[in-house]
Amino acid sequence: MALIVQKYGGTSVANLERIRNVARRVMRTRQQGHDVVVVVSAMAGETDRLLGLAHEAAPRPSEREVDVILATGEQVTSALLAIVLEDMGCRAKSYLGHQVKIATDSVHGRARIRSVDSFKLLADLKEGVIPVVAGFQGEDEWGDITTLGRGGSDTTAVALAAALGADLCEIYTDVDGVYTTDPNVCERARKLRRISYEEMLEMASLGAKVLQIRAVEFAAKYKVPIHVRSSFNEEEGTLVCEEDEEMEKALVSGVTYDRNQSRIELIRVPDRPGVAAKLFQALSHAAIPIDMIIQTSSAEGQYANLAFTVSKTDFPKALEIAKEIAQELGAQEVLSEEEVAKVSIVGIGMRSHTGVASKMFQTLANEGINIKMISTSEIKISCIIEPKYTELAVRALHDSFELQKEEG
Amino acid sequence: MALIVQKYGGTSVANLERIRNVARRVMRTRQQGHDVVVVVSAMAGETDRLLGLAHEAAPRPSEREVDVILATGEQVTSALLAIVLEDMGCRAKSYLGHQVKIATDSVHGRARIRSVDSFKLLADLKEGVIPVVAGFQGEDEWGDITTLGRGGSDTTAVALAAALGADLCEIYTDVDGVYTTDPNVCERARKLRRISYEEMLEMASLGAKVLQIRAVEFAAKYKVPIHVRSSFNEEEGTLVCEEDEEMEKALVSGVTYDRNQSRIELIRVPDRPGVAAKLFQALSHAAIPIDMIIQTSSAEGQYANLAFTVSKTDFPKALEIAKEIAQELGAQEVLSEEEVAKVSIVGIGMRSHTGVASKMFQTLANEGINIKMISTSEIKISCIIEPKYTELAVRALHDSFELQKEEG
Repeated sequence: MALIVQKYGGTSVANLERIRNVARRVMRTRQQGHDVVVVVSAMAGETDRLLGLAHEAAPRPSEREVDVILATGEQVTSALLAIVLEDMGCRAKSYLGHQVKIATDSVHGRARIRSVDSFKLLADLKEGVIPVVAGFQGEDEWGDITTLGRGGSDTTAVALAAALGADLCEIYTDVDGVYTTDPNVCERARKLRRISYEEMLEMASLGAKVLQIRAVEFAAKYKVPIHVRSSFNEEEGTLVCEEDEEMEKALVSGVTYDRNQSRIELIRVPDRPGVAAKLFQALSHAAIPIDMIIQTSSAEGQYANLAFTVSKTDFPKALEIAKEIAQELGAQEVLSEEEVAKVSIVGIGMRSHTGVASKMFQTLANEGINIKMISTSEIKISCIIEPKYTELAVRALHDSFELQKEEG
Repeated sequence: MALIVQKYGGTSVANLERIRNVARRVMRTRQQGHDVVVVVSAMAGETDRLLGLAHEAAPRPSEREVDVILATGEQVTSALLAIVLEDMGCRAKSYLGHQVKIATDSVHGRARIRSVDSFKLLADLKEGVIPVVAGFQGEDEWGDITTLGRGGSDTTAVALAAALGADLCEIYTDVDGVYTTDPNVCERARKLRRISYEEMLEMASLGAKVLQIRAVEFAAKYKVPIHVRSSFNEEEGTLVCEEDEEMEKALVSGVTYDRNQSRIELIRVPDRPGVAAKLFQALSHAAIPIDMIIQTSSAEGQYANLAFTVSKTDFPKALEIAKEIAQELGAQEVLSEEEVAKVSIVGIGMRSHTGVASKMFQTLANEGINIKMISTSEIKISCIIEPKYTELAVRALHDSFELQKEEG
């Protein structure tokens, strides 16, 4: 008998028929002898509707008040699921963020969970009651409602699993699990049976939108195993967990891509201390997140080229700032490409193997794809390329690293 | 400079345009130098929509969970009004029931307020912030959300006014105030300038649906003056307050009616102690509220007739119970009328005047209206009549007591 936290996303609770399906799945888990705590998102589309209402009220609505409005989405779903469970003969109770003391900081719209009080939930489980917790929401130290950002219910689920010492956190969504790459781009994409937290973090931040990054960080910190799976079938999904020997055999676990990138480059910046700091401080003040940064020095060592990427939505603002700073610094010119793509390979096996990077570059070269920028981490290599080659690059890398082959 | 609690009902906040009107009115009050605390209802129709959703989920949804769902209606309105106020340059903050510690009992769907913590509200006022409180909701001792029943936002407003020691509680609604009778039935109906709490209580419970009864009780207990007025114009409404000399001059303040009544009569019940108790305990166990009760003994003193009225929705169940008990008691038969009407006159002047009742009966007799039952209180006389005579009776009584004449 295990304690399982199950989280159901917006599409899984999109209407009452689906909520009834969710209730049946919760009851089956109970019948298998497990204790269950459920976390729910708002019904699909509801968060957007509520956000629209807030922006209809004022062009720039107070973030505190937007959170008050958004939180009602999960509130309604949690009570509806509790009603359906009780109707099916199962004792159940809904809880809002503040009722189970999901304490967060005060950053409205993307608050971070600080602590959770598991007391009420454990008391319910003891009495055979299934707690249904509204995801995505918490309460700050002033007693104000906060929300955790898109995908925040994942984090609620993992945080509850950690606080309860749960054996497993199941994330039910509308995809089957985590794939070696996007099946829409590469038909040989294969569902992974297991993936490490580290790899999942890289995959998540590189654009595989299955799990909120913050949820994976939380899970890694508290060693909560996450099972990502579909609520529309009974198949096993992907287990996100600590790395084990089996995983290490795989050199590369996945190929990801992100088409939503822009590139800006400052050419021949006089190379003296503080140049990079000046540029990136200015971008940071404008709240523009930077992805890759590459600096190269000229042979003489007097000038440097400074290139970076930002998401496409931030491009106009970032370019404007870059041009101002370039003038201040006395750079020769500013080059930019509004549309570039990033293709990455991720795998913890890279740590102990050489030749992964060169194989990636060779694979792209074989297809005639020019690499504009390269950035690497311990378990990831990313290349910036022309966007029209994205699919070709993904498929070539997937084949080259033989990701279609079954693990272990 | 006064402290005013303003409550806006569902039609006054039915859409964003009306919410903006409310915001302008709030700001005008502030510009006049007053401190304002606002209480809002859910947008018109929203509570019904949410209730429908809950009943779609299960035929008999858990009352605890229904309250969780219903509470979102006021939650959204309070945040929207705060957003609009801030957009107009006024500092404002929304509050939910639990955030200002509106503590209630645990009777979901019709909870009663026990206490309110005015700390946060007073702190806001000191800082020039307008608090916008979600009406209709509270929190019980377990931290569960409760709701106060239809019209519950009135009670929230009065409770806050009492806790804050406010000078006035303004109830903005879609009618101009309290009328001597229903203007749809009697075109000579006149808006009252003032009415006492006691009269208002009788008017409210007799079917003049302007204010929730509980709100009037609360106001009477804590001597909070209520100004009932329209949010769609600038006219003065009706002040509900303690009785004063001016009021006592008026014999009768209003005529009310209720068509939603049924009558049941047990004929020739053997007259022994405990007969009435047995019947009304059975009805009470079935949670059927009884309105009028009349018992008459036969001349010989061996038999009694026992008549009572219930609301039409409770009629089938009440009749079934009455028939069972009648058989147990050995009553001769059970008569019933599913549709009867109640017409009443209300006025604190009755306490010190005689002849009011006889004038009422004579008025009805002059119109050829037969009286089936009579019940009286210190400041009210009610008659049960055939429903088809309702409008005729109301108009005749309104004329007879000269209610069209201006007060004082």
